Amino acid sequence: MAKQISDLKLGILGGGQLGRMLIQEAINYNLVTHVLDPDHDAPCKDIAHKFECGSITDFDTVYQFGKKADIITIEIEKVNIEALEQLEREGKIVYPQPRVIRLIQDKGIQKQFFKENDIPTAPFQLFSSKEDLPNCAFPFPYIVKQRRDGYDGKGVMLISNADDADQAFESPLLAEALVDFDKEISVIVSRNANGDVRTFPVVEMEFNKEANLVEFLISPSTYPETIQQKAEKIAVSIASALNITGLLAVEMFVTHDGDILVNELAPRPHNSGHHSIEGNYTSQFAQHLRAIFNLPPGDTRALSNAVMINLLGEKKHEGLAVYQDLERVMAIEGVYVHLYGKKYTKPFRKMGHVTVVDQNREKAIEKARYVQQTLKVIS
Amino acid sequence: MAKQISDLKLGILGGGQLGRMLIQEAINYNLVTHVLDPDHDAPCKDIAHKFECGSITDFDTVYQFGKKADIITIEIEKVNIEALEQLEREGKIVYPQPRVIRLIQDKGIQKQFFKENDIPTAPFQLFSSKEDLPNCAFPFPYIVKQRRDGYDGKGVMLISNADDADQAFESPLLAEALVDFDKEISVIVSRNANGDVRTFPVVEMEFNKEANLVEFLISPSTYPETIQQKAEKIAVSIASALNITGLLAVEMFVTHDGDILVNELAPRPHNSGHHSIEGNYTSQFAQHLRAIFNLPPGDTRALSNAVMINLLGEKKHEGLAVYQDLERVMAIEGVYVHLYGKKYTKPFRKMGHVTVVDQNREKAIEKARYVQQTLKVIS
Repeated sequence: MAKQISDLKLGILGGGQLGRMLIQEAINYNLVTHVLDPDHDAPCKDIAHKFECGSITDFDTVYQFGKKADIITIEIEKVNIEALEQLEREGKIVYPQPRVIRLIQDKGIQKQFFKENDIPTAPFQLFSSKEDLPNCAFPFPYIVKQRRDGYDGKGVMLISNADDADQAFESPLLAEALVDFDKEISVIVSRNANGDVRTFPVVEMEFNKEANLVEFLISPSTYPETIQQKAEKIAVSIASALNITGLLAVEMFVTHDGDILVNELAPRPHNSGHHSIEGNYTSQFAQHLRAIFNLPPGDTRALSNAVMINLLGEKKHEGLAVYQDLERVMAIEGVYVHLYGKKYTKPFRKMGHVTVVDQNREKAIEKARYVQQTLKVIS
Repeated sequence: MAKQISDLKLGILGGGQLGRMLIQEAINYNLVTHVLDPDHDAPCKDIAHKFECGSITDFDTVYQFGKKADIITIEIEKVNIEALEQLEREGKIVYPQPRVIRLIQDKGIQKQFFKENDIPTAPFQLFSSKEDLPNCAFPFPYIVKQRRDGYDGKGVMLISNADDADQAFESPLLAEALVDFDKEISVIVSRNANGDVRTFPVVEMEFNKEANLVEFLISPSTYPETIQQKAEKIAVSIASALNITGLLAVEMFVTHDGDILVNELAPRPHNSGHHSIEGNYTSQFAQHLRAIFNLPPGDTRALSNAVMINLLGEKKHEGLAVYQDLERVMAIEGVYVHLYGKKYTKPFRKMGHVTVVDQNREKAIEKARYVQQTLKVIS
């Protein structure tokens, strides 16, 4: 008899909140989960069948970890690709595929991929170092990003003048023309090994500009059908062009003219899909498991309006985390709290999220505002 | 600052599927979970922060286990009450309270409690042994139950004649007049330490007569409002009379005349509440945590029609479990699979459950029938 999902050992590179929520779902299928993370106190530590503390960027550590799993996935892109490629050559299943992670790891290569595949994206230029920024063709202000290792808003700068350019990152850079967009949206798309592709409904994001993090997400979008269909079509075309197996989050800008420009990709469950746990028939975590185990995609329709808020560590608070007024927000109907098991808070650290579900969109937003003003992560 | 939920260690007596689903929910609150179970391969083994293999009926084992927790709960009634009472005397929080578990552990005392509190229930008599059954006042056929330790339909017999009575259990017995009921229903009610009480909507159960187990559950009920309100009122009056802190499942019969008779209680999450994970705004597991941590009760309304099926091990199959045609049922919209992490199947063993959610009640039932005929647990 062929191996079944419930017999398989899933190796997860990275043990943060995405891995944690993936494990919560994996429990439903008897999956055995092994997690590798350099933080001995990572959110997955106590809920994985086996937690290994070690580097996810070191060849040997990743290779030895992968050898023990039947199927390997990631919850963060910054992993050792060479080890994953070696494991793949030796017959291990690695989803998303290492070549996809390699492409997405480098924002420069990502942008070139968009260009080659006629995916609309903001104009860009690549620079080997900040010393070359004076050659940048874009007017001030423009954006520079580290080509590698940026996450949660780190590794991104707005360049308003020559002095800013002087202060930019040391590493190879991607410069982008500033897009004067109406809103940022996201479409999460899944693709299994059979090639079955399914998108989640378009969601709208609101950023905390100070922290440069998604702070507020609204599902589903109220953009006109034509714009939403265009966004979903772009997400599907990227997943197909990549031939990815797994989940792909596609972050996009909607311009004031209703055009769509792809910003960035993430080949895994994503912050812009957390609301799907309560807000959609199938969660992004369940969908990722379905995709990598080659099961049929689940129903992605929205059950209700859902608003997701990231719980970020309060400014000036560093130390043992305290969740102030948790009880007050739990008294509101349709409020779902997810804490990430992080012992220590620091300013802007993602400590959890809250999803507010309400059939009435305005009420959901109103409740989310209340939660945001009430529930604070302090020390 | 007062201790918060995310700082507390929750000790759970019993490490079966109820504990497993409780832990899946507890992860959202950073709860540290310790589990005690005599089976070294129990469903909670790999997902609890700490799993201890040991007897839950032995005084010392339970007492030592409880000493290490901040708050203690159960997922099965058959536990050492004396140890829990001792822990309570020493200031530990034990919810449900040991006196409630003690009362419910003994079906005879449960029945007397119903009588004393004017809770409608089928006529009963208590016997110290089967030798006294000839004195039973009920006409054949009647029901006998072991006063203690029955579960999942074990410890229950239909007595149709004097020979059957000869074959009854050796232990103290409860005899009940046979109720010619229309349907069995269940109401789950929660009560926190503040005394906030909340019921889940009435659900209807269908039994597998051969296995004497709930096999099919439909939420919400379509009984007339008057009957449903009567059932909810009874559930609330029992929770209040018991002064329970935690969840209480109240199983009841609806007679052909529309009367309600209480059958049995369970002071914990219950098989008749599994559908609430996807079918209601708040799941029974989340509600139990809210109750024992004295948080406000969550919204219990049904989100949709939901039908729950227990996945029982197939007859004649004993050994390593195989989930036949899992993929086929996962291809259907609104089908949620929960496997319990049990390595070995045997006839009628509860290996998992499936909840089918559909806005159309008839469609939900039809899909559930298909799942029941398709997904088989074999060896």
